Amino acid sequence: MTRLASYLPILDWGRAYGRDTATDDLIAALIVTIMLIPQSLAYALLAGLPPEVGLYASILPLVAYALFGTSRALAVGPVAVVSLMTASAVGEIAAQGTAEYLGAAIVLALLSGAMLIAMGLFRLGFLANLLSHPVISGFITASGLIIAAGQLKHILGISGSGSTMVEIVSGLVANLGTVNLYALAVGVPVTLFLFWVRSGLKPALVRAGLRPRLADIIAKSGPVAAVAATTLAAHVFSLGDKGVKLVGHIPSGLPAPALPPLDPELWGQLVVPALLISVIGFVESVSVAQTLAAKKRQRIVPDQELIGLGAANIASGISGGYPVTGGFARSVVNFDAGAATPAAGAFTAIGIALATLFLTPLISELPQATLAATIIVAVLSLVDLKALVRVWAYSRSDFAAMAATILATLVLGVETGVTVGVGVSLALHLYRSARPHMAIVGIVPGTEHFRNINRHKVITGETVLTLRVDESLFFANSRFLEDRLTELVAERPQLRHVVLMCTAVNEIDASALESLEEISRRLAGAGVGFHLSEVKGPVMDRLQRTDFLEHLNGKVFLTQYEAFAALDPRTAHIAEARKPRKATKADFWIGPEI
Amino acid sequence: MTRLASYLPILDWGRAYGRDTATDDLIAALIVTIMLIPQSLAYALLAGLPPEVGLYASILPLVAYALFGTSRALAVGPVAVVSLMTASAVGEIAAQGTAEYLGAAIVLALLSGAMLIAMGLFRLGFLANLLSHPVISGFITASGLIIAAGQLKHILGISGSGSTMVEIVSGLVANLGTVNLYALAVGVPVTLFLFWVRSGLKPALVRAGLRPRLADIIAKSGPVAAVAATTLAAHVFSLGDKGVKLVGHIPSGLPAPALPPLDPELWGQLVVPALLISVIGFVESVSVAQTLAAKKRQRIVPDQELIGLGAANIASGISGGYPVTGGFARSVVNFDAGAATPAAGAFTAIGIALATLFLTPLISELPQATLAATIIVAVLSLVDLKALVRVWAYSRSDFAAMAATILATLVLGVETGVTVGVGVSLALHLYRSARPHMAIVGIVPGTEHFRNINRHKVITGETVLTLRVDESLFFANSRFLEDRLTELVAERPQLRHVVLMCTAVNEIDASALESLEEISRRLAGAGVGFHLSEVKGPVMDRLQRTDFLEHLNGKVFLTQYEAFAALDPRTAHIAEARKPRKATKADFWIGPEI
Repeated sequence: MTRLASYLPILDWGRAYGRDTATDDLIAALIVTIMLIPQSLAYALLAGLPPEVGLYASILPLVAYALFGTSRALAVGPVAVVSLMTASAVGEIAAQGTAEYLGAAIVLALLSGAMLIAMGLFRLGFLANLLSHPVISGFITASGLIIAAGQLKHILGISGSGSTMVEIVSGLVANLGTVNLYALAVGVPVTLFLFWVRSGLKPALVRAGLRPRLADIIAKSGPVAAVAATTLAAHVFSLGDKGVKLVGHIPSGLPAPALPPLDPELWGQLVVPALLISVIGFVESVSVAQTLAAKKRQRIVPDQELIGLGAANIASGISGGYPVTGGFARSVVNFDAGAATPAAGAFTAIGIALATLFLTPLISELPQATLAATIIVAVLSLVDLKALVRVWAYSRSDFAAMAATILATLVLGVETGVTVGVGVSLALHLYRSARPHMAIVGIVPGTEHFRNINRHKVITGETVLTLRVDESLFFANSRFLEDRLTELVAERPQLRHVVLMCTAVNEIDASALESLEEISRRLAGAGVGFHLSEVKGPVMDRLQRTDFLEHLNGKVFLTQYEAFAALDPRTAHIAEARKPRKATKADFWIGPEI
Repeated sequence: MTRLASYLPILDWGRAYGRDTATDDLIAALIVTIMLIPQSLAYALLAGLPPEVGLYASILPLVAYALFGTSRALAVGPVAVVSLMTASAVGEIAAQGTAEYLGAAIVLALLSGAMLIAMGLFRLGFLANLLSHPVISGFITASGLIIAAGQLKHILGISGSGSTMVEIVSGLVANLGTVNLYALAVGVPVTLFLFWVRSGLKPALVRAGLRPRLADIIAKSGPVAAVAATTLAAHVFSLGDKGVKLVGHIPSGLPAPALPPLDPELWGQLVVPALLISVIGFVESVSVAQTLAAKKRQRIVPDQELIGLGAANIASGISGGYPVTGGFARSVVNFDAGAATPAAGAFTAIGIALATLFLTPLISELPQATLAATIIVAVLSLVDLKALVRVWAYSRSDFAAMAATILATLVLGVETGVTVGVGVSLALHLYRSARPHMAIVGIVPGTEHFRNINRHKVITGETVLTLRVDESLFFANSRFLEDRLTELVAERPQLRHVVLMCTAVNEIDASALESLEEISRRLAGAGVGFHLSEVKGPVMDRLQRTDFLEHLNGKVFLTQYEAFAALDPRTAHIAEARKPRKATKADFWIGPEI
């Protein structure tokens, strides 16, 4: 692949493009278009924007991703969590429905696009790794709950606002007296219908003899049926006159490119939200893309994905849209429907453009309660509270990070939620690696193996102490090692030698090196030798570049057995005197910790 | 030791206190008192405070530390770096010489004391580990340079101000026309004298037949001689009338306890500086204390040290002083002079109290240039630019953290400097552990050993790939593993099995577990088995608490050889067919990476 092609993957797959692939892509595009129309409208309303903005965000961004993206099945566009984050960020700057609000959403897309492209060019995709799985999972669960709660007002036909759970719930409770029964009569049946479509329709169709793939596609178009039926009902029963909120007039026609607001203060206020949206959007998108690519043994290039998503967001901003990313549900539909290349995305863009031109007049009487129902059904599938139980069983500190993320997101809002999650998981990681597992080891009689004295029947001497550290040595744990060794030596007046067994030490950074020097000096002051054993090649190589080995008040032994035999000949003699035998499994593992 | 005694170490050592120990402590106290008087005055001026505040900070804090501290030799009081940090923090809030300035310094001591005690009670001492050695070393070097540059104005007899290198140097240059030759005539000789005392006097005395310890003590009292000589000169030649700045009237008498300013806004502004001062002070102090304790095989308890230093700072704040910590030079003098228990600190406090009562009238004519010279000579010994070269040779990323800390401290000031250093070292640590060393391994013919295919002559098959990861798996690197494995599988259409060799995996967190599940799912989708080998006991134990092993699209093998033999019998056959031989050193290590 040439250098240019690595930035423009279309040069790669476009060369082999033929009629068969085009047919596959067209079919997939048709199905995704049908699915995307109600979704785009619904997510735009969720973001607090006019519904047509959702359609705009589903045209040019798809073309841009088709040019620059590396996934052959990813379908980009507005998604639930990013829409919520947009509403939260922009809501702090302008009031919904104003030109400033739309302008800020456009700036958010442009900023996010620029950041994603910069991260791609500078190979900074690894930053997304700061979001641990429990934090993402907790964040998405909490966002799903906030989104679902926020949509309840449309189902109930009352007014309300807020971007945190507390605000939303108190808003709902305050307005509960003004429930609109007509809205309720639309919203509740549609919600139940969509839940049934999602869980019951596909099996029913399969039982009726349809092929599973076809049954799946029909089930996925359930929202379109709901949109058609409730629009018709709204028209026939004049629901708009009875207080049911309708989508209203949607301007036909394609988005016209326009200059975004250029107020530097506005851009400055949106930098942090744009960064969070970029990272969250990228993490979600890349994990979908990788899962789908792996099924066909294809590859995606994460750093190029950043550029693809960045281009999509710039395209969205230029064409009056708001932040977009790769969506899970629609990408799976695209993949299952047979999309073979990113061209399917471009064809979908054409489909949405046609809808924007010709279908919009038909849906002005669509009740907002219908869109709210599609959102509720979609996001509740993202809510995974059982994950809390699973994570609790596996790791308390991961549970703490997840619970903190959920709580902070629900109570303090999405931006604080993500930040708290990242902060807590980093802090817990450092806390754990600052206190690595260490074991005093002794020799297994009759062998050359050394094991934890608390877990195995091993021989140790009074004058030699061997400590095994099960972690690389770096600044966060080097002082802990100092403390621990100082403590061990202070407790043992007989001690003449300390051996640090480095089997699990993959790295020693400059802080740890200074700590080792300090330990060597201190032990020398106390008349105790300090030795290393089983140092790995790359680590030894680095140590040899310093004068550490010259000043070391002891030796570096190739194996722990050599150290033991050299420093404590008496005990070694005991070990050797026993009849040698081959080590058995029992020597290696008798408890939960080796 | 009872629970109470663990919080009040005096109950421990106090019980065995007798006449011999008391004599040792008294002698040490006398010597430290002589050393502390000029230092206390000088560091108070460095902090922008009246000189007597330095004396106040050297009385009650020493008594408090004697009660609560665990080190038997640590001498607490005002130190250079903390004085600079105090000047920087308080200078942003009030003008030097005002009552607000002194009040803010007192609040800083109280806040820092409260934080240290809280950190001690909640066992948060590990937070100090976030400061890597290169960051501390860089910070102290940069602080030393700033302090020395800031004192030049006193040597030159000009005015100037500023808390960053840029401000200080531009201030000096602007006022260079107003140099006072009398001040210069005091400052330059004193500086040269003190440098000579530090480097040349002790060897000269030893050559003259003195015992090294006595010679050392005489050399350490050089500043006192300089103080006496220049005070006399100032009096005789009326230097005060000739524009030489003198210390001026110092109120005699002990500090009276007074209520600190209770303005909540002021306390709020000082929270961050107080935290930084606490952490820096603790790190410096605890490393001195540990070094000295180890020499006598004594122990210090870092979490109790936090309480000791916290109590010292509270005592300082209550008695009109400013933040204190354990000083390097004075602790070594204390130790060398034979201090046996913390009572030496209490005796020093009595010495300083007597000096405050009776000596202060004598030093009103002490030139500030003399104090500036003692500061310059003391801090330049902290400047260690060669450390940059050493760290560069050992580790590029540690060098980057150190250089960033020095630059940020010099240009942006002490608080930003520390923060930047911690941020850069954390980011670099995560960056490195996000990209762990991984090696594809093959079998060494005739053995059961597996080594890196790029370094050793090993056998691999086309259908089985074994990847060894040399790092624990956690959120920051789990996605990297996903990417790498997806890439490797995409490149090898023949592949049937992937084995992850876990010899160096000390932990698998929840994110890494999900990544492994995802990898297993993806590989299953591509018809490739996913296996683990050499999983450590504690890690296996955790995996067994989940349903991971049930869903794993492959097996967990006890040894890599078992995996190899089971999955690729043909190649294993080749390896077995060769005449078995014992592994030699050459099998294990032929290059800089294994």
